[in-house]
Amino acid sequence: MIVTVTLNAALDVTYDVDAVALHESHRVRTVHSRAGGKGINVARVLAALGEPVLATGLVGGIVGRQIRQELAAARLPDALVEIAGESRRTTTVVSAEDGDATVFNEPGPDVTATEWRGFCGRFGKLVRDADVVVCSGSLPLGVPIDAYATLTGIARRHGAHVVVDADGAALLATLGAGPDVVKPNRAELAAATGRASVPEAAQSLVDSGAQAVVASLGADGLLAVTPGGTWQARPPERLSGNPTGAGDACVAALASGLVRGDAWPDLLREAVACSAAAVAAPLAGDLDVDVLRRFRPLVKVEKLDGAHADG
Amino acid sequence: MIVTVTLNAALDVTYDVDAVALHESHRVRTVHSRAGGKGINVARVLAALGEPVLATGLVGGIVGRQIRQELAAARLPDALVEIAGESRRTTTVVSAEDGDATVFNEPGPDVTATEWRGFCGRFGKLVRDADVVVCSGSLPLGVPIDAYATLTGIARRHGAHVVVDADGAALLATLGAGPDVVKPNRAELAAATGRASVPEAAQSLVDSGAQAVVASLGADGLLAVTPGGTWQARPPERLSGNPTGAGDACVAALASGLVRGDAWPDLLREAVACSAAAVAAPLAGDLDVDVLRRFRPLVKVEKLDGAHADG
Repeated sequence: MIVTVTLNAALDVTYDVDAVALHESHRVRTVHSRAGGKGINVARVLAALGEPVLATGLVGGIVGRQIRQELAAARLPDALVEIAGESRRTTTVVSAEDGDATVFNEPGPDVTATEWRGFCGRFGKLVRDADVVVCSGSLPLGVPIDAYATLTGIARRHGAHVVVDADGAALLATLGAGPDVVKPNRAELAAATGRASVPEAAQSLVDSGAQAVVASLGADGLLAVTPGGTWQARPPERLSGNPTGAGDACVAALASGLVRGDAWPDLLREAVACSAAAVAAPLAGDLDVDVLRRFRPLVKVEKLDGAHADG
Repeated sequence: MIVTVTLNAALDVTYDVDAVALHESHRVRTVHSRAGGKGINVARVLAALGEPVLATGLVGGIVGRQIRQELAAARLPDALVEIAGESRRTTTVVSAEDGDATVFNEPGPDVTATEWRGFCGRFGKLVRDADVVVCSGSLPLGVPIDAYATLTGIARRHGAHVVVDADGAALLATLGAGPDVVKPNRAELAAATGRASVPEAAQSLVDSGAQAVVASLGADGLLAVTPGGTWQARPPERLSGNPTGAGDACVAALASGLVRGDAWPDLLREAVACSAAAVAAPLAGDLDVDVLRRFRPLVKVEKLDGAHADG
């Protein structure tokens, strides 16, 4: 079973408008809301892949109740922990004119030290049955910057593997706890390490304690620095679509592969195929199953520091 | 006592951002929410003026509960009627860079015929103690276009005066019921009548059944075609600020004057002073009391079709 952690869960609201113009008043044609935050999107992908999953994290207020209602409607098992603050909404305004999105992210709640300690206690119980824990996304105010290191420590004491998708100081603060995998994208990797070279930057995160680094490179696929070597996995073709959920789908595939104990080439092949299937689906957390099936056998996996491992 | 009607009540949400850019992702610095819709803003102004007021209309869903919670916190008496649909949110994104606002208005709920009949029955009880009824703002889907004519008829049978702030087909459909005052702005007046001349357009609404027409002309004040003649009322100076709530403050002043039985010059003087006081206040529904006191004796009221009535 996989537990996903979303400390800054959100209600993701989409507004469809005819066209977006600054300093104008807009009539919103349709409103769609669904539970979001990276860990919840990972849980949604895992459920779509048929993997037993439990979503935990922090929610509060009226928006928190809306998040839980939407998860219940989507039949995603939820062990979210209630806090006093109000969960955030993200509003994405999509223009029918050009399909482009303008996004407004609310800041999210302020978490008290007592609430954070309470969550850690609850998390310690939830991970007893977990094979893999996924920690994804930003930290709300009040949660310590080394939150994912704390959760990694708790999870590992219970024998669970840990995948972390974080950036900046929250990513760096996780490394010392030795997470099984961290998954920055190209920009996050460069920002966190100050190095433009992806292999060098990834290696520096390994040197700081991560067991493996999987860097997501958009249409160029993945570069992974692992205990078994350095690998590149590439999609067979470039897909147009919505890249928002690709990172979450990649993380879901890695977690699912860790449950099965897959070898790195297989893990990476599935992660690239799932990322592409997410790009081809309109909403973050969804997969285009046809793309998934089509891409799986076509992903090219190459060992960069030794023998060729494609196929 | 004044009853205000808000058939399409809203939760007005304000997002403060550093700057607004199309197709970008924005970090919202602060989020403010309060109950809105024109009739609720009118009720807020009336409460600020010390006038006994009751806000009715239609609300539904989670947003409807938030609207009622905010009204309770503001100590505004609420007799809103619950419907199954979800009330709308309006989101105003204010840029710290230039102070300009970009607005997104959700469509609002769909009201069933049964819900509308239920509201009319409840309204018939609420207006028994009313001196004046104010009907303000847009109609949600499912509410008949002559809704304000129906409510005007019910209110008049109970001896209440009626002020209507509507536009387009909803304004035109009200006239036959003989409301005491309708208050279009310049653009609404031109759009509803097809006439650019404000006095001619206002007279045409009187010819169609309105007892008086008060046209709000922004910094030029008000033009009123009334049973006692045509009047123009002008503010002593032009104020910069937020014009959003000026029309609602004007309507509140007219309703308050009708309760007292004020003569038209006094009604209009107070309406111009309240409009200016609303422009000077940052939020719709608020008044700058200093501006109100300063403007009251300085508003110029002129009779356009006869003797001079300033003073």
